[in-house]
Amino acid sequence: MAKDFSSFLSLEGATRKKSPLKSLIPLMHGDMISLGGGLPHPSTFPFHSLSAQITSMRPAAHQQKAVVAAASSDTVTVPLAPQPDKIESLTASLQYGIGTGIKSLRDFCREHVRLMHQPQYQDWDVILSAGNTDAFSKVVGLLCNRGDKILVEEWTYPTALETLDPHGIGHVAVEMDGEGMTATGLRRILDNWGSTPEQANDPKPRVVYLIPTGQNPTGATMSVKRRMDILAVAQDHDLILIEDDPYYYLQFHVEGGSWMPTLLSMDTDGRVIRLDTFSKTLAPGCRVGYMSMNARFCDTMQYHNEVTIQQPSGFSQAILAEMLVSHWGQEGYTRYLTDNVRTEYLKRSQYLQTELKTHINPKLASFIEPSAGMFIWIKIHVDQHPRYKTVKDSALMLDLFRKCVENNVLMVPGWQFSCKPKPQDVDPADVMNCWFDEDANYLRATFAYASFEQMKEASIRFGQTLDQFFSA
Amino acid sequence: MAKDFSSFLSLEGATRKKSPLKSLIPLMHGDMISLGGGLPHPSTFPFHSLSAQITSMRPAAHQQKAVVAAASSDTVTVPLAPQPDKIESLTASLQYGIGTGIKSLRDFCREHVRLMHQPQYQDWDVILSAGNTDAFSKVVGLLCNRGDKILVEEWTYPTALETLDPHGIGHVAVEMDGEGMTATGLRRILDNWGSTPEQANDPKPRVVYLIPTGQNPTGATMSVKRRMDILAVAQDHDLILIEDDPYYYLQFHVEGGSWMPTLLSMDTDGRVIRLDTFSKTLAPGCRVGYMSMNARFCDTMQYHNEVTIQQPSGFSQAILAEMLVSHWGQEGYTRYLTDNVRTEYLKRSQYLQTELKTHINPKLASFIEPSAGMFIWIKIHVDQHPRYKTVKDSALMLDLFRKCVENNVLMVPGWQFSCKPKPQDVDPADVMNCWFDEDANYLRATFAYASFEQMKEASIRFGQTLDQFFSA
Repeated sequence: MAKDFSSFLSLEGATRKKSPLKSLIPLMHGDMISLGGGLPHPSTFPFHSLSAQITSMRPAAHQQKAVVAAASSDTVTVPLAPQPDKIESLTASLQYGIGTGIKSLRDFCREHVRLMHQPQYQDWDVILSAGNTDAFSKVVGLLCNRGDKILVEEWTYPTALETLDPHGIGHVAVEMDGEGMTATGLRRILDNWGSTPEQANDPKPRVVYLIPTGQNPTGATMSVKRRMDILAVAQDHDLILIEDDPYYYLQFHVEGGSWMPTLLSMDTDGRVIRLDTFSKTLAPGCRVGYMSMNARFCDTMQYHNEVTIQQPSGFSQAILAEMLVSHWGQEGYTRYLTDNVRTEYLKRSQYLQTELKTHINPKLASFIEPSAGMFIWIKIHVDQHPRYKTVKDSALMLDLFRKCVENNVLMVPGWQFSCKPKPQDVDPADVMNCWFDEDANYLRATFAYASFEQMKEASIRFGQTLDQFFSA
Repeated sequence: MAKDFSSFLSLEGATRKKSPLKSLIPLMHGDMISLGGGLPHPSTFPFHSLSAQITSMRPAAHQQKAVVAAASSDTVTVPLAPQPDKIESLTASLQYGIGTGIKSLRDFCREHVRLMHQPQYQDWDVILSAGNTDAFSKVVGLLCNRGDKILVEEWTYPTALETLDPHGIGHVAVEMDGEGMTATGLRRILDNWGSTPEQANDPKPRVVYLIPTGQNPTGATMSVKRRMDILAVAQDHDLILIEDDPYYYLQFHVEGGSWMPTLLSMDTDGRVIRLDTFSKTLAPGCRVGYMSMNARFCDTMQYHNEVTIQQPSGFSQAILAEMLVSHWGQEGYTRYLTDNVRTEYLKRSQYLQTELKTHINPKLASFIEPSAGMFIWIKIHVDQHPRYKTVKDSALMLDLFRKCVENNVLMVPGWQFSCKPKPQDVDPADVMNCWFDEDANYLRATFAYASFEQMKEASIRFGQTLDQFFSA
């Protein structure tokens, strides 16, 4: 069983309760007639059936898909009323429900987590979310009070920090290397907490937010040893780990199902909150993800869902349930992840890396090859610039960014992923006129979206821009 | 233009900022190649097309719908790639977007608000939400700090209070009559604020939450005069009004489009935040609503969406957009609201009222006829009970509720809508063993969901239960 982490709940988390409204549900059996729950009548739903053409994962069709394109498509249909051969109906999935999400899809996700991560304690559970961004904001509410600080990777997903700021929750940057957050860096901060004047009044952080696979923006993936070391620090310092893992299934070197073990899979205490999403494996517009954690936390997250989103869209849930449960199954979904999603991003990653290497002078910029995810974190060697040390690094980087825009190649400025506070006197949205953080000598490139032709052309333009910039 | 209400923003609301990540979007024009935004590649989406059978609102088909059922159905289809004759595509609607929701659906909702409510100031705007529950929780974050109190109807939607509690935001109950919250009650509280010891340290409330049409649970609908009076108090005491109006289109006596004027339509200052949802007009499972408010507040709500749900489900949005924009239009949607939704609930309301009147002894229970919504708020005349005054009213009501359950008729206990604090020593979810609030001598019945046969049988059972209970 999970350890008792209820002392980690925030004021908000500890106060969340089950709604009495839901207490009537157990009374609904036998001959009971309910004039209770305010459910709209399905006769007012203008939707009579729903269907989607989906990629077929039937083994036969799959093998032949290169030959007969039409055979690679299946139709999933959700009828209005429940039918014996269908797991979902619009009457049910478009009605109000409970904050866990619909049973069929939740069960599928729970089974997927069991198969993939085999959690080592018994009372873990899974509920659906509206994607990892919403899930993270709720985990923050579960665990953090105004004035708390959470530990984050020194370069991180900006939306995570934007989630914390308005709630008065701070963050502490932990150093990274090519494998993401370092365990030594994490331990050093916690061992020495309180030793600096600014930490004297701050409660010691108890929560770590990290993106262990194909990290955004650095592309770093934690090795098995790194994961074990991070978990050891978490046990020593009694931390909750938020494992935000949207890029988990974009591991390029997976062979024979050898997925990287996750923090959840190593956790014997129930201290890992794992966030998964269909955004990168099926489509962002699903707005469906799933969260795995100890049952105590899971219940509170459910109550939070019930006073916010209630549950993910019924259209999304019904289509995903029919596709994943009735058509693909666990085997088909896993095959889709490896054969379609992973293969596509592997191909794209290799292509952009090759093009960048071909067109960039390695003295001027470099990157570590990502083994997962969507991103290449390009370090700019500003020390090679003629004006190096005569102007600030940030001035050089802003100059380079502007030249990139002039030459019609766009990457994300490294400072957007910085943990350092932004000055109040400049509008960070004014991206052509500001560059924060003297150490942010990076640009983030993605191979996820552009066409191959565009990636080639962008690499050429970027290489030329670098040559032009460094010779100025 | 709206007045400046920025001083009403909470610590959270005032701190929310536009994400720098979005600042790259304006640079995307001309020959620009972006390796910026981390958008998944649409080739990894396993969805090739989406379609739904919907109720036809073509005038011809509509007139004949009783005759030819098949003709009353249309098909909306969302193709994978953009097509000239389609407003949405899966490539776009299943991709990441901005926190306002997709343009076509947002524009439709904005135009609908303009047509229905004709706001009297210029800089109002509309953005999409994941339904009114999520929207309300975000409005609370926009305006309220821990320790604040907001003004609510004395019987109200329990989820609203459950939204406030975990954030340490209190509530003050305002008296109601058959037309909902009274303006005199609201004014009295504010005129005398600070005069009681418990108010001495509380900041004066600045936010009112109210459900003006077919109120949950009382079924009350505010008259035009009541709305004007409430707005006058809001102007005198400088209040923000949260107009949560999910039952607005369930007005039974609408004739020739004579919808009740809304608080938004009367507001000249920009102090009304109006929450609309498709949950009661199309289906709860859409998880799509829209919020109308001054542009300053609207921007902040957008930033809040962007760090939580991002936007409603792309499946939901694409289907609603195709149905509402391409098929129904404003005229068709309004006709659906009046001819289908309103008519169904009118019929149901009248049926249950008639059955209740037929089978209930009017000396034992009574109700005010609702003119909108889904609910009948049944007052139990406990003073007619032989044990009245010898035991607490709450004991009598709990006894009645148990007898109802024994007799297989379920309604919601009135205390679940009470604003009074619940004792800590009893589990409010244990609904068979607790009845809080000595004044909650009510049961809430809904005519929304049960079949007509069930409503008749439930009325008979309830009438018999009352007879049995009052003769004990």
